[in-house]
Amino acid sequence: MRRTSLCGDICPVARSLDEIGDWWSILIVRDAFHGKKRFSDFQQNLGLAKNILSARLRKLIAHGIVEKRMAPDANARGEYHLTEKGRQLVLVLSAIRQWGEDHLYAEGEPLMVARDRMSRPIARLSLMDQDGRPLTANDIIVTPGHKKTKSGLKRTRRARGV
Amino acid sequence: MRRTSLCGDICPVARSLDEIGDWWSILIVRDAFHGKKRFSDFQQNLGLAKNILSARLRKLIAHGIVEKRMAPDANARGEYHLTEKGRQLVLVLSAIRQWGEDHLYAEGEPLMVARDRMSRPIARLSLMDQDGRPLTANDIIVTPGHKKTKSGLKRTRRARGV
Repeated sequence: MRRTSLCGDICPVARSLDEIGDWWSILIVRDAFHGKKRFSDFQQNLGLAKNILSARLRKLIAHGIVEKRMAPDANARGEYHLTEKGRQLVLVLSAIRQWGEDHLYAEGEPLMVARDRMSRPIARLSLMDQDGRPLTANDIIVTPGHKKTKSGLKRTRRARGV
Repeated sequence: MRRTSLCGDICPVARSLDEIGDWWSILIVRDAFHGKKRFSDFQQNLGLAKNILSARLRKLIAHGIVEKRMAPDANARGEYHLTEKGRQLVLVLSAIRQWGEDHLYAEGEPLMVARDRMSRPIARLSLMDQDGRPLTANDIIVTPGHKKTKSGLKRTRRARGV
């Protein structure tokens, strides 16, 4: 099935999914966070066909989410590492993790937990307004705007004393 | 392509993607947040084939993310509404939105912005430890654990004075 490209869409959700919306792509990124680097490691852990893994890695590299590097032992296939853009997907993975933990596991059921360096579960992500008040889905509207310039962001932060 | 089911996986990312990992499914959920209810509205806005939309809606209903209701005007096709479980996906959509805004738009480029009821852009989501200190991808490890019981959650919150 050919999918429509959404790379020109003004909705950041649509444009993001064009790069990372694929089920396998997000799991490859997850495995890269967990230290997987080699083609064979991804393949073994995800149990997916080599041609599919190749295609997904190529797409992630084309989008600048993953980069290929020489392996220290000069392994011909090289290693796959997350770029900074790829590492920023930690937020997306964390939001998916939190929703899954809330809705798809019974109380007491074993599951993988995200922890800080002291082994404490990380804080829950929550949607808030600019004054730190919690927001629900009902409080949020999505309307056209523009991406802020970096100088604009700095001005806003200064105005708020951050 | 038949995809492996990950519904038995102990990783909440994998189990979530089994329910919502599809590109179209997340865009259907997004459109439902934006007030779309009718089959024809989703189809028109997303520009996808009817059989694909039908299949995705059936899956979202089977997973309890969307529910079908009678339309007020007794339209034979009915209406599709997010359940509470579906509405909680606002966090996942917001994380995707933030990543897309950060990485896929040039400064000043038009894009859709999530705002509160006073039309102010919502606060950025950020990963923090339990004391409110910011965390990066490097600070987070994922290890086996168990889903907390509700009573356990309450105890933790009381201990922290929340």
